[in-house]
Amino acid sequence: MKKVEAIIRGNDFDRVKNALKQIGIVPLTAYPVQGRGVQGGVPPYDLLPKMKLEIVVKDKDLEKVVDVIIRNARSGTPGDGKIFIIPVEDAVRIRTGERGNEALY
Amino acid sequence: MKKVEAIIRGNDFDRVKNALKQIGIVPLTAYPVQGRGVQGGVPPYDLLPKMKLEIVVKDKDLEKVVDVIIRNARSGTPGDGKIFIIPVEDAVRIRTGERGNEALY
Amino acid sequence: MKKVEAIIRGNDFDRVKNALKQIGIVPLTAYPVQGRGVQGGVPPYDLLPKMKLEIVVKDKDLEKVVDVIIRNARSGTPGDGKIFIIPVEDAVRIRTGERGNEALY
Ligand SMILES: Nc1ncnc2c1ncn2[C@@H]1O[C@H](COP(=O)(O)OP(=O)(O)OP(=O)(O)O)[C@@H](O)[C@H]1O
Ligand SMILES: Nc1ncnc2c1ncn2[C@@H]1O[C@H](COP(=O)(O)OP(=O)(O)OP(=O)(O)O)[C@@H](O)[C@H]1O
Ligand SMILES: Nc1ncnc2c1ncn2[C@@H]1O[C@H](COP(=O)(O)OP(=O)(O)OP(=O)(O)O)[C@@H](O)[C@H]1O
Ligand SMILES: [Mg+2]
Ligand SMILES: [Mg+2]
Ligand SMILES: [Mg+2]
Repeated sequence: MKKVEAIIRGNDFDRVKNALKQIGIVPLTAYPVQGRGVQGGVPPYDLLPKMKLEIVVKDKDLEKVVDVIIRNARSGTPGDGKIFIIPVEDAVRIRTGERGNEALY
Repeated sequence: MKKVEAIIRGNDFDRVKNALKQIGIVPLTAYPVQGRGVQGGVPPYDLLPKMKLEIVVKDKDLEKVVDVIIRNARSGTPGDGKIFIIPVEDAVRIRTGERGNEALY
Repeated sequence: MKKVEAIIRGNDFDRVKNALKQIGIVPLTAYPVQGRGVQGGVPPYDLLPKMKLEIVVKDKDLEKVVDVIIRNARSGTPGDGKIFIIPVEDAVRIRTGERGNEALY
């Protein structure tokens, strides 16, 4: 299992979210963050508001999810965002106690 | 060391927090998030507000912490939440410079 | 690649942010959280507001980044904060599709 952390523009969040649902990846967690990229912010702002998405996926779905995020968040201009991939050792669905891949979606 | 990330109902946060303290796990970090599970949100809402907890624990305390979260966040109905377990390579207590297990609690 | 997660006092955020830029580490993500440490909060508060920073760095820059955070967030009094180090398997710059170290800064 992998955690996909994507930091994207707030304006792209709905499109990314809908595109993920269309490939069958419904579950996700999101929250607003502040960030700076390589260029920093745009003066006079040091930090820019972004949206962070977290999606814990099965290994077999990883590249599909990364690809959908890229295709729906890329404008080709600076600030399109980043994706980070982090290992996940286990998952639990609290309602049922299921663990691992079975607990994800 | 492991990071326990739990996404639970805001209403269950106080009970989980107090139960963790009772088993001797005091430190934690929390913040509100928006999320959707397998069923999505409840129309007309796409995303539902949840609380996310992060607790970095010693390996030996992992299952105890997972168990306490499950017991205090489970209602048996959809939306009870998820727990994800992520490896942690090191920890630092900034005040003292302690590292590893010594830095956690 | 490693993710450095630092939970520090909001008052120290500007100093840490500027010090990171001075060593050439510009990109970062930040958001406010609530937390309790070993001592819990200060009654009557159970949780205290903190700022959480996330910086995904090259392995070779890890100790330098940890060191700068410590030096700029340490007061020597309880509540200075924590740093956690988490493995990162891959990174993507959405604009270009670059992956790995090239995608970080
Ligand atoms: N190495 C990093 N660590 C943590 N967060 C990062 C990192 N790089 C980028 N971010 C986050 O991603 C957001 C978007 O970054 P951004 O797309 O500007 O990256 P960039 O490397 O500057 O690429 P570009 O040249 O396309 O702008 C930032 O505001 C920040 O929140
Ligand atoms: N795979 C996932 N990746 C990231 N976040 C997730 C994932 N699954 C669930 N979440 C988060 O957990 C919250 C609660 O999910 P929820 O309990 O509804 O899971 P579920 O799989 O739908 O189980 P149930 O059938 O018991 O409702 C979601 O709102 C979302 O924030
Ligand atoms: N083990 C942990 N897991 C998750 N978050 C933690 C953990 N320990 C500390 N934190 C976060 O870091 C913040 C600051 O913690 P704090 O500096 O008070 O740590 P401490 O262990 O109590 O050290 P000190 O004795 O120097 O106060 C907390 O409010 C919480 O958000
Ligand atoms: Mg940029
Ligand atoms: Mg659900
Ligand atoms: Mg403390």
